[in-house]
Amino acid sequence: MTVTHIKNVNLATMTGVQNDTLAVETNTELWLQGDKIVGIGPQQDHDFVHTETVDAQGMWCLPGFIDCHTHLVYGGSRAGEFQQRLSGVSYQQISEQGGGIKSTVAATRQLDEQALLDTAIRRTARLTEEGVTTVEIKSGYGLDKDTEKRMLTVAARIPDHLPVNVQRTYLGAHALPEEYKGDSDRYIDYVCDTMMPYIAQHNLATAVDVFCESVGFSLAQTRRVFEAAHRYDLHVKIHAEQLSDSKGARLAAEFGALSVDHIEYLHEEDISAIADAGSVAVLLPGAFYFLKETQLPPIAGLRSHKVPMAIATDMNPGTSPISSILTCANMACIQFGLTIEESLRGITVNAARALDLPLKGQLAVGFDADLCLWNIDSPADLIYEINGFRPAAKWLGGKRVL
Amino acid sequence: MTVTHIKNVNLATMTGVQNDTLAVETNTELWLQGDKIVGIGPQQDHDFVHTETVDAQGMWCLPGFIDCHTHLVYGGSRAGEFQQRLSGVSYQQISEQGGGIKSTVAATRQLDEQALLDTAIRRTARLTEEGVTTVEIKSGYGLDKDTEKRMLTVAARIPDHLPVNVQRTYLGAHALPEEYKGDSDRYIDYVCDTMMPYIAQHNLATAVDVFCESVGFSLAQTRRVFEAAHRYDLHVKIHAEQLSDSKGARLAAEFGALSVDHIEYLHEEDISAIADAGSVAVLLPGAFYFLKETQLPPIAGLRSHKVPMAIATDMNPGTSPISSILTCANMACIQFGLTIEESLRGITVNAARALDLPLKGQLAVGFDADLCLWNIDSPADLIYEINGFRPAAKWLGGKRVL
Ligand SMILES: [Zn+2]
Ligand SMILES: [Zn+2]
Repeated sequence: MTVTHIKNVNLATMTGVQNDTLAVETNTELWLQGDKIVGIGPQQDHDFVHTETVDAQGMWCLPGFIDCHTHLVYGGSRAGEFQQRLSGVSYQQISEQGGGIKSTVAATRQLDEQALLDTAIRRTARLTEEGVTTVEIKSGYGLDKDTEKRMLTVAARIPDHLPVNVQRTYLGAHALPEEYKGDSDRYIDYVCDTMMPYIAQHNLATAVDVFCESVGFSLAQTRRVFEAAHRYDLHVKIHAEQLSDSKGARLAAEFGALSVDHIEYLHEEDISAIADAGSVAVLLPGAFYFLKETQLPPIAGLRSHKVPMAIATDMNPGTSPISSILTCANMACIQFGLTIEESLRGITVNAARALDLPLKGQLAVGFDADLCLWNIDSPADLIYEINGFRPAAKWLGGKRVL
Repeated sequence: MTVTHIKNVNLATMTGVQNDTLAVETNTELWLQGDKIVGIGPQQDHDFVHTETVDAQGMWCLPGFIDCHTHLVYGGSRAGEFQQRLSGVSYQQISEQGGGIKSTVAATRQLDEQALLDTAIRRTARLTEEGVTTVEIKSGYGLDKDTEKRMLTVAARIPDHLPVNVQRTYLGAHALPEEYKGDSDRYIDYVCDTMMPYIAQHNLATAVDVFCESVGFSLAQTRRVFEAAHRYDLHVKIHAEQLSDSKGARLAAEFGALSVDHIEYLHEEDISAIADAGSVAVLLPGAFYFLKETQLPPIAGLRSHKVPMAIATDMNPGTSPISSILTCANMACIQFGLTIEESLRGITVNAARALDLPLKGQLAVGFDADLCLWNIDSPADLIYEINGFRPAAKWLGGKRVL
């Protein structure tokens, strides 16, 4: 098997634990074989024969970025609603007019697979253009079996069109569909007893997510969904503490959640439970920005409890219509006060952990060869300058794709 | 001369005055000849013979975007300083260490023309990728004759590499160079008596700008620069009221300034002077975002006095390292409460006015054929979704460039 040899390269490896300084190896060499990184360091350490050498000419190599929380498969646009909100119309009024998530569910149900795929490809292309090699995509705008399945099928088809890995999450408990109005418990029955076995049987997702909030589902309902997820051997994740301290993150920790997402209103006292569970705190600064939120996530507490922090776009039509992981990483610094190191780890190693992809997000022997070369002075440039850079070269699973 | 005929197209024309609804012509036809728009409407109104027809298939056409305030030619990176500021180091401390604008001046003076050009092309490419067809570029990181000339020469060379119009502004009064420390009046002598005639004689810029602020130049010094600019028949612009109400915008209005830029701290009572002068208010939401500013520009007053509002990136390494006009347009909505219509006019017709380019920024007969086709449902999509779209086709001066 041919070995790819990248010489004259600086590595930001994202290895080790969060620290004040980024782990780097400068002026080194990188060896790829099959879909893995098989060596780091000078040639004499290795005895590879058939090699293809790429001279990185002093460029930086980073793991491909991982966007670990998106809803990028959907129909319709909420630009009109955005305009109304700018003009002072309240979310309540918009919802009463049939706007909000209801309008996205209606539009998504109407679109066929190809139409959904076309827009999903466009949004994913914006991410891959700036170095994303893995993206998580949630269902949750269908809420019925056909449409949820169609969304997850579309998500799986994106890699036929773009060089990217897709991880899928079933978010049936995203909103209450109209047909279950006034009977949310019966909808949760449907999610747990009908949809979950179907998702598991057809391998449509590897994790289950719940929007646990007064305007979403209750703590008791969330617990039922998580119990079902465990029965079907699916990971759990949660949208929690975005609008209020509803103790969803603590519940998710009890179920060993991969991640607890949003958490602006997370109480300090609940952080240790998250730390003990090994869950990742996924910060979503795009939603914070679009909603003009002022309540900051408890960053100091997450740091002191050594909870790994990831950053994602939350790409969705209602509260975070942004297809740029690097802009979100910058927002995490500006809005939440993350350091550049935290921000870079948040879109690599910690995002991989939030998706249970332990071999992604780091540059080390034995890890997946998903990586980009960047013509930059230092890795900090990528976070500091909004829309500044594009990868100079890219490998996905060891295959050169740019 | 061949006529380009774009059929099945929807136009957002940006004509007329600011209004509650965007001026549109749907399902129409557009005719280009030479570098101008020569017709709008069905074929029978025209008698063009040699035509090339493009079927826009219902896409939207907008004027190419205009970024009317940037500093995108510079050397070095301030990512390290950004990181220090995130870690709590004050701007004062950074400046004492030789950071801040001083470090950019030092780095810019060291770079030769080609090196400056390379990075300027990269930043401009990010703008042209998302539909910018005209960009203003200021000098101001050289402060000596050689470097200011080199910056402006580099700016003029960008169109050899990318499809874009460049407008140049001399910003000698940006900061006090080290060699004039303690003697800012003598530096202003140099700007007015040595640099200005040189700029005018060699046609290096069409406008002169001043950073009028306690940490920049005084009102009296600004007046001297503007008087000199008028002697040499150069337009004036101003960086004013960014950090305090120093009355710079009112002074600029007295000199018939093309634009008054930043103006977060502009006092309501000074708005009528700006309105009477016909100056454009250039809003710079990127700097507001990066500096975590909380003082909002007086949007309601600008509206009621019918001052045209433009939006620009202010692309610069210290306070606004962002190369995305559409993200800035979104920020103007989210942060300043602009409507989508105001935002779209802010990066087209009003930005053209801020640069004294009366034939740009609108789709109408006799106007410059700088325009893009977009595969979108409505023009609002471009503002609402961050990093969502790329032009499907582009014409610059009537020539197809994408
Ligand atoms: Zn979400
Ligand atoms: Zn500026």
